[in-house]
Amino acid sequence: MTERPCIAITPGEPAGIGPELVTRLSDAFPQARLVAIGDPALLPATDNLEVRAVRTAAPVTPGLLDPRNAAYVLETLRTAVSGCQDGSFQAMVTGPVHKGVINEAGHPFSGHTEYLAALTAAPMPVMMLAAGSLRVALATTHLPLRDVADAITPERLDTILRIIDHDLRRFYAIERPHILVAGLNPHAGESGHMGREEIEMITPVIERLRDAGLNLTGPLPADTLFTPGRLDGADAVLAMYHDQGLPVLKHVGFGHAVNITLGLPIIRTSVDHGTALDLAGRGVADTGSMRAAIHEAIAMGQRGR
Amino acid sequence: MTERPCIAITPGEPAGIGPELVTRLSDAFPQARLVAIGDPALLPATDNLEVRAVRTAAPVTPGLLDPRNAAYVLETLRTAVSGCQDGSFQAMVTGPVHKGVINEAGHPFSGHTEYLAALTAAPMPVMMLAAGSLRVALATTHLPLRDVADAITPERLDTILRIIDHDLRRFYAIERPHILVAGLNPHAGESGHMGREEIEMITPVIERLRDAGLNLTGPLPADTLFTPGRLDGADAVLAMYHDQGLPVLKHVGFGHAVNITLGLPIIRTSVDHGTALDLAGRGVADTGSMRAAIHEAIAMGQRGR
Repeated sequence: MTERPCIAITPGEPAGIGPELVTRLSDAFPQARLVAIGDPALLPATDNLEVRAVRTAAPVTPGLLDPRNAAYVLETLRTAVSGCQDGSFQAMVTGPVHKGVINEAGHPFSGHTEYLAALTAAPMPVMMLAAGSLRVALATTHLPLRDVADAITPERLDTILRIIDHDLRRFYAIERPHILVAGLNPHAGESGHMGREEIEMITPVIERLRDAGLNLTGPLPADTLFTPGRLDGADAVLAMYHDQGLPVLKHVGFGHAVNITLGLPIIRTSVDHGTALDLAGRGVADTGSMRAAIHEAIAMGQRGR
Repeated sequence: MTERPCIAITPGEPAGIGPELVTRLSDAFPQARLVAIGDPALLPATDNLEVRAVRTAAPVTPGLLDPRNAAYVLETLRTAVSGCQDGSFQAMVTGPVHKGVINEAGHPFSGHTEYLAALTAAPMPVMMLAAGSLRVALATTHLPLRDVADAITPERLDTILRIIDHDLRRFYAIERPHILVAGLNPHAGESGHMGREEIEMITPVIERLRDAGLNLTGPLPADTLFTPGRLDGADAVLAMYHDQGLPVLKHVGFGHAVNITLGLPIIRTSVDHGTALDLAGRGVADTGSMRAAIHEAIAMGQRGR
């Protein structure tokens, strides 16, 4: 009998909806061993949910942030990462954290993705969201819009496209991933009339990588990229920035989108939503994204062994 | 008996798919009088399609651009505009033009919207696309991405929001339009952590206009704006730039999206696609967007009388 894959889950902010999402889904994945990393007081163990105990520093009231528990949140992440690195876990799934309260407690933290990249010494984590068959990766993530154009360099694009290609082969068992690359400017610059980054940077990178064997199409105008004729046969889209790629992804994937970090030495998926403090403790939050994130982590782990 | 509304249609580039779309739809709107403005050789009149003759300068071969016919394209637009202004037409619907060949022929032309605004002395045309119940207007349109942040000023936002409010009342008979306003930065700046335009500009404009009676919500993160909970009860979205708003609009409205110019003294709708030179003359191009554009023009005209 094949051993069941073991998946670590960090419920995230203890006062948010993360713990209850994990609890409510504990019996939904009989094909896997789920190990929640957190305070047992928040996470009743079930037949199919083990709990690796990390204790909160202060009592938790749903909906109320407490900076005293920020270190606890980070400790659950470190525990999950080290278990992925030593082979105890095949993948990790993260619930929503609250950046503000972690910063307030004095820990520099700009987001899960960056924190996990630092822990695993990964030079270029790549954020990709998936909803059904649509996968959208981002060339830049959480930057002011006015900083986007300068943040996109040939080196960055080259590295990110290689990572997407590599990880789609490894974790999605796609033999030669077909990646659609968006332009930076409207209409992908319209032959240079609305910006020259496509001509001077994006097209040359795409051409070099095609010579290296990657299957790339672009730069494409973003407004018509997400239509059936374009998406048919594509395995992923690389958008140049956050609000170019994610509105359509979240429209399509409302309630079941998954956030995946590529470019790490471990497998990590995440919910695509926040802590929803206003819903916490009431058992009414939608489990769809957490369910999809666990499902995706199991599938990636099985393909990527 | 109520007189049928009279709608002018400019088929646009004569070598593109515009003329055949008009011809194929000529009998689809018995509730209106359709008047195509163009060369009768390209536009056989039918029982329900009159042709106002403007003649091409050179013979037309489908798929082949000819700069000698650029002046013809502009003349059809001028004819339609003056008919809208003198009351002969209730609205105008434009087919796709080819900017490149018009410029090549020596006519400065940056797009339909700007040309029509100049002809009608409209200081601030506003581009809005509609697909079913989703309407997305843009605060900036055809600019390089790196110029977007500086192009958005309080005055511009104020004017555009007033125009959207006014035109939704007038042409859509919406008593108090509810407009969702996107932020400029990812996560609408996340309280200033990723850009300060929301705090310094967008929020103050929204607050002033609320005091003036407008029904505005925002600034909202663009990535979660296009989800059911947000869109329910909203009449339009104002996106800050082209690729923030149009990917989801064109995803939703594939094949039936309509481009509407607000802020003009006349009613103008348009297809949302290009000249499709590769399809021209074969009778296979999708009529969906032209059909929707004519339908929208008739409806706007009836409400806006």
